[in-house]
Amino acid sequence: MSQSTHLAVTVARRPVAIPQAEDFAVRTVTLPDLAEVQIHVRNHYLSVDPAMRRWLSDAKGYADRIGIGDVIRAFAVGVVVRSRAPAFHEGDPVMGLFGWQEEAIVVPEAVMLRIDADARCLSPYLGVLGLNGITAYFGTTDVCRTQRGDTVVVSTAAGSVGSCVGRIAKRFGGRTIGIAGGPEKTRQCIDEFGYDVAIDYRSEGDLDAAITRACTDGVDVYFDNTSGGISDAVLRHIRIGARIAICGTAAIESWTPWPLGERPNRHLLIKRAMMRGFLATDYHDRHAEIVSRLSAWVDEGSLRYREDILDGLGSVPGAIAYLYSGKSTGKLLIRLPAAQD
Amino acid sequence: MSQSTHLAVTVARRPVAIPQAEDFAVRTVTLPDLAEVQIHVRNHYLSVDPAMRRWLSDAKGYADRIGIGDVIRAFAVGVVVRSRAPAFHEGDPVMGLFGWQEEAIVVPEAVMLRIDADARCLSPYLGVLGLNGITAYFGTTDVCRTQRGDTVVVSTAAGSVGSCVGRIAKRFGGRTIGIAGGPEKTRQCIDEFGYDVAIDYRSEGDLDAAITRACTDGVDVYFDNTSGGISDAVLRHIRIGARIAICGTAAIESWTPWPLGERPNRHLLIKRAMMRGFLATDYHDRHAEIVSRLSAWVDEGSLRYREDILDGLGSVPGAIAYLYSGKSTGKLLIRLPAAQD
Repeated sequence: MSQSTHLAVTVARRPVAIPQAEDFAVRTVTLPDLAEVQIHVRNHYLSVDPAMRRWLSDAKGYADRIGIGDVIRAFAVGVVVRSRAPAFHEGDPVMGLFGWQEEAIVVPEAVMLRIDADARCLSPYLGVLGLNGITAYFGTTDVCRTQRGDTVVVSTAAGSVGSCVGRIAKRFGGRTIGIAGGPEKTRQCIDEFGYDVAIDYRSEGDLDAAITRACTDGVDVYFDNTSGGISDAVLRHIRIGARIAICGTAAIESWTPWPLGERPNRHLLIKRAMMRGFLATDYHDRHAEIVSRLSAWVDEGSLRYREDILDGLGSVPGAIAYLYSGKSTGKLLIRLPAAQD
Repeated sequence: MSQSTHLAVTVARRPVAIPQAEDFAVRTVTLPDLAEVQIHVRNHYLSVDPAMRRWLSDAKGYADRIGIGDVIRAFAVGVVVRSRAPAFHEGDPVMGLFGWQEEAIVVPEAVMLRIDADARCLSPYLGVLGLNGITAYFGTTDVCRTQRGDTVVVSTAAGSVGSCVGRIAKRFGGRTIGIAGGPEKTRQCIDEFGYDVAIDYRSEGDLDAAITRACTDGVDVYFDNTSGGISDAVLRHIRIGARIAICGTAAIESWTPWPLGERPNRHLLIKRAMMRGFLATDYHDRHAEIVSRLSAWVDEGSLRYREDILDGLGSVPGAIAYLYSGKSTGKLLIRLPAAQD
C-alpha cells in the first residue's frame, strides 16, 4: 500500500436495530494532505463501544449521525506520525476520535487524552484508563456519591465499565453486587473484579429474590448499564435516598418503537431517589487527573481489567454485533498492525 | 353530642384503585382521655391529598397503611383545646396529622407546623402555606434548581401544588408552561397562577407539537405531578442538563399491576438529565422559614391560590374520588363546624 492510501471502515447501509457486519464496508481510501494545525495519527487499537450504535442509527443521539459512505466515528489509540499543530509532536501517543481506520488526519480537538510517553501498551487507554474507567469513576463518585456502607448494584458487571465500577465502588466503601449473564462472567465478577456478590440473571429464576438475598437492607446505589427487566427488578429494591446512574441501555434491542417498561416514578417518589444520565465527556477537564489516579490503582493491582482483542480491520464489521451478543467479556478492541511494530 | 364523643371517618373496606365513598364510614367515636404530653386539637379544616390513596392501599408506601376500622390519617388544621404538653397551649392554631375527624388527641410530634396566632383563616395552612406550597417551593428550588432563563413545564398546573409552582418558578427567573385539562383550568393557569403559556392536554390533538411550540429550545425543568402520557411527551422535549422533579402520579389509575410506560433511560442518558422524587416532609427543618416567605408573597399578591371547599364530615367519603375526577380546582378541603365558630 502506498503511503497515501490506507484501509477504513465505512457505513454501507443504515443499520436496523443492532448493526451487523453487512452494514459496514472495508475500503481503501486516500489519506488527505496534512493541513495546517492538523495531526496525522497512526492507529494501534480501535474501540468498539455501545455509543456507536446510536451514532449509526436514525434517531437523534449524542452527536451528528454518521452518513452513508462515511468513515465510522470511533475512539482509537495511536501515535502521532506527523504534526502541523504546535502542541503535538511525532511519537506522541494519543487517544481520541480517530475513527475505524488505519490512519487519521485530525484536528487537535479530536484528541481526548494525551498518553504518558512511558506507557508500555496503549490499549488500556481505550478501556480502564480511557472513557470506560473515567465513566466508572464519575458515575460511582459524582453521580451516585458512593460512600461507606452503601449497597452498590451494577448491571453488566463484567463489562468494560461495570468491571471498573465494582473496584472503584469498593474503594469508596461500598458493598458491591454485580449482575452479569452466565457462570463465566459471574466468576470473573468475584475472582477478578472484586465484587462481594455476583448474580447470574440468566440462571436466576427469580431475580427479585436474588436481589433480596444479596441486598438485605435494599439498594443505595445502582449503576445501570442495561435498562430493561434487570433495571425494573433493581428499582423494586431501592432504599430511601437511593442514587441511580444511567450509563447504558445494553438490554434494549431497539429504540424504534420506543420500548415500554415499568414506570419508575412511584419508586423514585416513595424512596426520594435520584436517577441521572451522564457521559464521561462531560467531565473532560478532569480526565487527565482521573486517568492518573486509575493508572496508579492498576499498577498497585487494586484495579483489574480484561481485554477481548480481535485482530485486524477485517474483524471490525461484525464487532458491534459481537459486543451485543453477550459473548464478549471486558473491553472489546481491534488490534491493528501498527500495534505490533 | 356529649363532650367525650365526636364524628370520625374510618376505613370501611380496603379500596381498589381510587378510593370511593363506599370505602369509608362516618362513625361516632369516643374521645380518649388526654394523657400526659398529649394535645387535644379541634379540627377546623381537613385536607384531601393524593398521598392518602397510598396510605389506604395494599402496596408499600410512605408510612404504615391505615387498618380497617381505623380513623383515616390526614392533614388538618385546628386549634388546641387543651394541652398536657409543655410547648402547646389552649388557643394555639396548628397544622398536622390530626386525621379525618372533628377532634384529635395527639402527641406533639403530630404537629407539623405552628400557625401564627394572628392568622385570619387557617385553611391556607393546608395548601399554599402548608405542604402544597412547601412542596412547590422545594421542588422548584432544591430539586430542579430553577434559574433565570429556564423553560419550566408543570403538569396539573392548576392543581394545589402546580398552581404554586408556576408563580415560584417565575420568581426564580423561569419561563413557565402549565399543562392542565380543560379550558377553565388553562384559563386559571394564565389569569390566576401567572403561567406564560397554558396547554390543554385534553383538547390538544398533538401534545408533542404543543410542547414544541411552547418550548422552542426544549425543557430545562419539568415539575411532574402526573406521570403517564403527559410525562412521556414532556421527556421527549428535555434539553441537555434538564432537571425533573417527581412530585406526584395523578395520571396513574392504579399501581396494581404496575403500569408500563416509555422507558426514560435514553432521554436521561442523551440529555444528561436528572430525575428525582421528593417529599416536602424531608425538608421539615425549613418548613417554618418557607411558610413565612410564602406568606409574604401571598400578602403582597404575587402568589395566588384557589380553594375548593366541601362542607361537613358527610362530604368526606367521596372526597378522594372527587379529587381524582379532575373536576376540583385548587386545594380540596373539608370545612368543619368549628371553623365557623
